[in-house]
Amino acid sequence: MAIITLTSDFGTDDTYVGEMKGAVLAIHPGAVLVDLTHEVAPGSIREGAWLLSHAWESFPKGTIHVAVVDPGVGTERRALAARSHGHTFLAPDNGLLHLILDLGGAELRVIDAARRAPSARGTTFDGRDLFAPVAARIAQGMRFEDVGPAAIDPIRLEPFHPTRENGSWSAEVVRSDRFGNLVTTARQSFLESTFGPVWRRLRVVAGGREIALVRNAYAAVPRGDLVLTIGSAGTLEIGCNGGSARGVLGVLPGRSIRLLAPD
Amino acid sequence: MAIITLTSDFGTDDTYVGEMKGAVLAIHPGAVLVDLTHEVAPGSIREGAWLLSHAWESFPKGTIHVAVVDPGVGTERRALAARSHGHTFLAPDNGLLHLILDLGGAELRVIDAARRAPSARGTTFDGRDLFAPVAARIAQGMRFEDVGPAAIDPIRLEPFHPTRENGSWSAEVVRSDRFGNLVTTARQSFLESTFGPVWRRLRVVAGGREIALVRNAYAAVPRGDLVLTIGSAGTLEIGCNGGSARGVLGVLPGRSIRLLAPD
Amino acid sequence: MAIITLTSDFGTDDTYVGEMKGAVLAIHPGAVLVDLTHEVAPGSIREGAWLLSHAWESFPKGTIHVAVVDPGVGTERRALAARSHGHTFLAPDNGLLHLILDLGGAELRVIDAARRAPSARGTTFDGRDLFAPVAARIAQGMRFEDVGPAAIDPIRLEPFHPTRENGSWSAEVVRSDRFGNLVTTARQSFLESTFGPVWRRLRVVAGGREIALVRNAYAAVPRGDLVLTIGSAGTLEIGCNGGSARGVLGVLPGRSIRLLAPD
Repeated sequence: MAIITLTSDFGTDDTYVGEMKGAVLAIHPGAVLVDLTHEVAPGSIREGAWLLSHAWESFPKGTIHVAVVDPGVGTERRALAARSHGHTFLAPDNGLLHLILDLGGAELRVIDAARRAPSARGTTFDGRDLFAPVAARIAQGMRFEDVGPAAIDPIRLEPFHPTRENGSWSAEVVRSDRFGNLVTTARQSFLESTFGPVWRRLRVVAGGREIALVRNAYAAVPRGDLVLTIGSAGTLEIGCNGGSARGVLGVLPGRSIRLLAPD
Repeated sequence: MAIITLTSDFGTDDTYVGEMKGAVLAIHPGAVLVDLTHEVAPGSIREGAWLLSHAWESFPKGTIHVAVVDPGVGTERRALAARSHGHTFLAPDNGLLHLILDLGGAELRVIDAARRAPSARGTTFDGRDLFAPVAARIAQGMRFEDVGPAAIDPIRLEPFHPTRENGSWSAEVVRSDRFGNLVTTARQSFLESTFGPVWRRLRVVAGGREIALVRNAYAAVPRGDLVLTIGSAGTLEIGCNGGSARGVLGVLPGRSIRLLAPD
Repeated sequence: MAIITLTSDFGTDDTYVGEMKGAVLAIHPGAVLVDLTHEVAPGSIREGAWLLSHAWESFPKGTIHVAVVDPGVGTERRALAARSHGHTFLAPDNGLLHLILDLGGAELRVIDAARRAPSARGTTFDGRDLFAPVAARIAQGMRFEDVGPAAIDPIRLEPFHPTRENGSWSAEVVRSDRFGNLVTTARQSFLESTFGPVWRRLRVVAGGREIALVRNAYAAVPRGDLVLTIGSAGTLEIGCNGGSARGVLGVLPGRSIRLLAPD
């Protein structure tokens, strides 16, 4: 039972995602296809890299993850395949695999351009015409070595982890979800090692406001109040019980927050 | 062949739905996963209860329905499992199962908190970390009694059925769909028993307008006119041929309409 | 392994798509269901016809494609089944199959109204109550002749192909995708036969601007510039490297562009 996940910036107004699935099923009708999300902002490689980086962990070993945010499609940019922690990842070589490669131990290959579907229409849809058929072949049992030659020097992005500035730590708001939760790059393990056993008494400065204490539930604070949690990616989040932290704080993805040690 | 449906307020901009599916497939790779909708308004338990209440009927017996609209996640609120009419329903104990329990005859259990995934990241995503693994176990054949102890006194919502006020009946506009149809809580069976064999000659007062006669098609009236139908939930709807009844009447979900007996 | 694709104007805020899938699975639990898109503009038959017309090609022979954009649901309008190029198409008789019938060689039948689900609620959801069960029966192996009697004179739309006006060719902008690419009806094969081996040096006039040269990549031109490509439907598209051609040109679907021979 081969599972293939799909992540892209295609949206769902068009049939692009459906066509990718057709291209997989035409080769391997038994594949199980799961959408992670197709609402990555158009061309936003950094957002795609983040979304892919924690969602894959919920899937069983052997899963193949196809990620396509690909403004350079049709150029000479390479297409990559990575194998790490028992999962396989396919993506253009533009940084989309940055956080997967951060995990360490990945085997990395360049997808042979000759694997493009002979039936390809146009030159601007490698999701359907290259990545989908390669995913289907891997799902069918093609050896990873046969994807193409070993790759070195993949393109990387700016690091995601918190940085030390002027005596305090700064973390990136990397995402705001549907509920207005502000997802940061500060992992629980980072907070534990940086602030020690009292890490839950952390103070955060964001949008001119200070919020303290990491809780287990949004409803641990009065309705309308801001609250810190460890979100579903395992990183620090700022939420608002019954409201939107994004709206209350006016903080958008790309901005930084400060992390202050417990008093 | 185990079918698991998913209903939530997660939207599809994030990978939350995909992660829930991964958590199911990691336990039971043969599960068939079907989205009902993930566009319940954030935190709107009443809307989620309504959407779940009629969609389940289209699925075969044995289907497992997971519904997660869960502003209280991480608190002591219980997680419930209900078995009714050969279907299984999993949801937080916050009223989301109200209309399922209205069906009568449900066996109700509290999901044992020890069933939470040992790999859970954070404390705010029971959809992935509790409901998905329990659904997968039930799909694999776990006995319903083993979900947890029998539950009593589940949380209920305000009733949905029409009420008698000042000599006329009042029904709730519970939903407005993509086409601007106004879906009400008045079931066809209610109309038949209340107004008798002439029930199709019913008159409705909504947004200051009176509409009469229940039709079989939007196109049974001239283009732009309002029209009464029995919608796909089996309840009275106000539509507009080629337009939006919501737009024409300015009536939003939560408002009431009056039902008047045929002249 | 029977694959059934779904295309509609239902959106995903409601449970309509999920209910259609339930109605298929209740009859044929082994069906593989794939969404093409459900974001056809409400009631836009022309848009639905276009989206269906090229997406089906990515699927293997034997796939069943259900398309429901159906403002006339509940009236006497017929429901059609077409078999062409080894694929089966189900849709209301309102033009939605126009481009499929343009392929030639289709066997066309009227779906017998007696095939409506006996459990149908209301009269306005043939997607769930008629098309889904018929698709499931065909997936199970029902003979195509048993769908219903042979159909003649299906409803057609205005033609999609480029037209000759005042000495130059005019093509329709039939769609604008999420990236702001303007998809036209001019197929590569049309350009080749009309303009000969130098067809890639074509000039296009759109929104008062002239764009020349068909490229293989958006990034073949400087960032912010307009670019011609053969898009994923195999037709001429106007894009913008790193931007939106729709935004830059102010051209919306339904408008025409002019095609000028290479100098």
